[in-house]
Amino acid sequence: MENVSIGLLGLGTVGSGVVHIIHEHQDKLQHQLGCHVEIKKILVKDMGKPRDIYLNGAVLTQDVNEIIDDPEIDVVIEVMGSVEDTKEYVKRALKNKKHIVTANKDMMALYGNDLLELAHENGSDFYYEASVAGGIPIIRSLVDGLASDKLTKLMGILNGTTNFILTKMSQEGREYEDVLQEAQALGFAEADPTSDVEGLDAARKLNILGALGFSMKIDLDDVSVRGISNVTKNDLEFCHQLGYTMKLIALAERTDGKVEVSVEPTLIPNEHPLATVNNEFNAIYVNGEAIGELMFSGPGAGSLPTATAVVSDLITVIKNMNLGVTGNSMTPPQFEKQLKSDDEIKAKYFIRLQAVDVPGTFAEITTLFGEQEISLEKVLQLPVANEALAEIVVTTYETKKSNFLKVLASLNDSPAVKKIKSYYRIEGDVY
Amino acid sequence: MENVSIGLLGLGTVGSGVVHIIHEHQDKLQHQLGCHVEIKKILVKDMGKPRDIYLNGAVLTQDVNEIIDDPEIDVVIEVMGSVEDTKEYVKRALKNKKHIVTANKDMMALYGNDLLELAHENGSDFYYEASVAGGIPIIRSLVDGLASDKLTKLMGILNGTTNFILTKMSQEGREYEDVLQEAQALGFAEADPTSDVEGLDAARKLNILGALGFSMKIDLDDVSVRGISNVTKNDLEFCHQLGYTMKLIALAERTDGKVEVSVEPTLIPNEHPLATVNNEFNAIYVNGEAIGELMFSGPGAGSLPTATAVVSDLITVIKNMNLGVTGNSMTPPQFEKQLKSDDEIKAKYFIRLQAVDVPGTFAEITTLFGEQEISLEKVLQLPVANEALAEIVVTTYETKKSNFLKVLASLNDSPAVKKIKSYYRIEGDVY
Repeated sequence: MENVSIGLLGLGTVGSGVVHIIHEHQDKLQHQLGCHVEIKKILVKDMGKPRDIYLNGAVLTQDVNEIIDDPEIDVVIEVMGSVEDTKEYVKRALKNKKHIVTANKDMMALYGNDLLELAHENGSDFYYEASVAGGIPIIRSLVDGLASDKLTKLMGILNGTTNFILTKMSQEGREYEDVLQEAQALGFAEADPTSDVEGLDAARKLNILGALGFSMKIDLDDVSVRGISNVTKNDLEFCHQLGYTMKLIALAERTDGKVEVSVEPTLIPNEHPLATVNNEFNAIYVNGEAIGELMFSGPGAGSLPTATAVVSDLITVIKNMNLGVTGNSMTPPQFEKQLKSDDEIKAKYFIRLQAVDVPGTFAEITTLFGEQEISLEKVLQLPVANEALAEIVVTTYETKKSNFLKVLASLNDSPAVKKIKSYYRIEGDVY
Repeated sequence: MENVSIGLLGLGTVGSGVVHIIHEHQDKLQHQLGCHVEIKKILVKDMGKPRDIYLNGAVLTQDVNEIIDDPEIDVVIEVMGSVEDTKEYVKRALKNKKHIVTANKDMMALYGNDLLELAHENGSDFYYEASVAGGIPIIRSLVDGLASDKLTKLMGILNGTTNFILTKMSQEGREYEDVLQEAQALGFAEADPTSDVEGLDAARKLNILGALGFSMKIDLDDVSVRGISNVTKNDLEFCHQLGYTMKLIALAERTDGKVEVSVEPTLIPNEHPLATVNNEFNAIYVNGEAIGELMFSGPGAGSLPTATAVVSDLITVIKNMNLGVTGNSMTPPQFEKQLKSDDEIKAKYFIRLQAVDVPGTFAEITTLFGEQEISLEKVLQLPVANEALAEIVVTTYETKKSNFLKVLASLNDSPAVKKIKSYYRIEGDVY
């Protein structure tokens, strides 16, 4: 094979990075692969848009058929985003025996299994390292590097936007809305930030990692999701006083064959490695029966980091083409999905509430915890200025999620409690 | 292929872990590989030694020929350690067309290239993930995950023993000898600790990583090595006052095609992710042109973590056997080795000295730095109790290593200086 022809779907942030890396690192590619790697055609939305990029002979087109039906194109790199149409293009490319590299987490979370099966049927390679955590080679590490271990827990900071917002709120003592506006101005958050701040983006990535890590088909609906839009400056101050840092944690945990998958704002002890992953950086903490603990951290997004993952996948595809062993990207799930019930999910919790400041209130509240067999680890009580109220912050020892939900309900109904201000899960043992 | 037969050389810490994982995770192996994986024979030193391990039908032997000449054995896993004899066994196994998985950093640092070539000639696979940083999948990440990037810097904590010692010295304010004895008692340091504490173990691992990361043949002699046996409690206290943590850092850096490889006790800013990697944990920090910064951390040794890496390599070998594509483990180096001269190595430095406490001393010392065009960043001066001496601690801005060596020589010759107590490199920008 003297020449490998690429069709690139999309020339946005990641697409431009792919063009740049393939051009800049051509000597390295030639050395590793023994062939020339050429981007033949690029699908764009607007042919006339001014572009500050050296295209090295690649032809722009607005017609996706020009790429997926071109018999000379060997590999289609999909970095155009969106789901429904894109999925159809990818399917047609697979039916035309093209290999696929994609950075599309949304498509993978929703249709990954179908696409991987279709790739296998057509003898095509299908890689998607860039869909999770940008430049961090986490998918490869789960699939190959930890292939021999049984993983028990994956805990990740998988969304850079929310990590940026929480870092700024925490370090600068600012409110959510204020920092969100700064993030939007800096380009770290989109005009409609819902997908990031409500945890949906992290849920899609967790879905992909959980399925790989636990060898189980996990649906997006299985992920329990809470975002950060209700987190306040005051919450973070109390976290800080108690020795915790808040992160939007994507958690997949397996116990006795049953799994939990959740994304929620979570308190992490300050000494835990995840607590020091700041700003737009991503990190994934992996626990396995044999390996113990591993952590990977790095840029979770950005043009060149994400493009590095894409082009590294491309290199794997071309090596497989050279060896004649494409079509083996997929290992079917080993286990039937079994989800934990709320009785089987165990965690520690933080809860902050405003109580009526009269004698007996505190006893009443602790009684409600006691009725659910929840022990309290730390308690902070302070008066609320100018009101006959007390602010009470409590952290619990490990309890069943079902019991915690019951105590929340009974606190809500109690005349001693004026308002539950916030509650969060606590994770991350420090050894 | 219904059955893959393994010959295991060595049943020590790692070997026992390999036996355990292959037995415990047989269902996962069967699922991924579609075949049964069986350890047929195990080379041991002492047949009569009591062993607390379930051998699942494996036969012990003291005769290595029983394994490497057995035509039924497909893969030889080498976890016996030592170099010269071991290398010969591995060579003979390769000539007998067996695939090799090894955890032997010493053998790889000294004979890796020859063995990889011999494997290629014989159509054999050859993997060695476990030889560096135990359970951290760093070799795979360099070879596959970052295949598309040009790496500029690798900075690692690659030796658990020295990291344990430096952590304890720093956190508990204890002297080197004292902590070394504790580490020996706990089994974290060997009776003869030279290879660990003098940096040789880290140098061998760096040699392996540097060659892969920069696609260049690097010899062990190219690594400039300093150990930690002269580090004192006082040094660490001054580091701490200046906002640094000391780590034994293995550094490989490439600038304009030229590389530096060194292992030495190095000051890292407290906010840098490497500064928080404590006790026996390992970590590798990677910089690349496109990727920016990535960090991997986890257990650098231990029975099960290291065995996880070994068995993950074994899985790769068996997948390749199934696909009929063994013998491609090696990419020959892309670049000719070019080492930096001391004029081309640039770093910041810490130096601690005792000076004669008379007027003009400090001016004389700063003049010596000025003569080498070295600017000082921080200066601490304090009297030494009961002596007419002043303790002076200085950190520099970035300078050429050659200039720093010259200033060391002139300080040594200066009548104003009684003694140079210690000096260390400073690394790690924090963004």
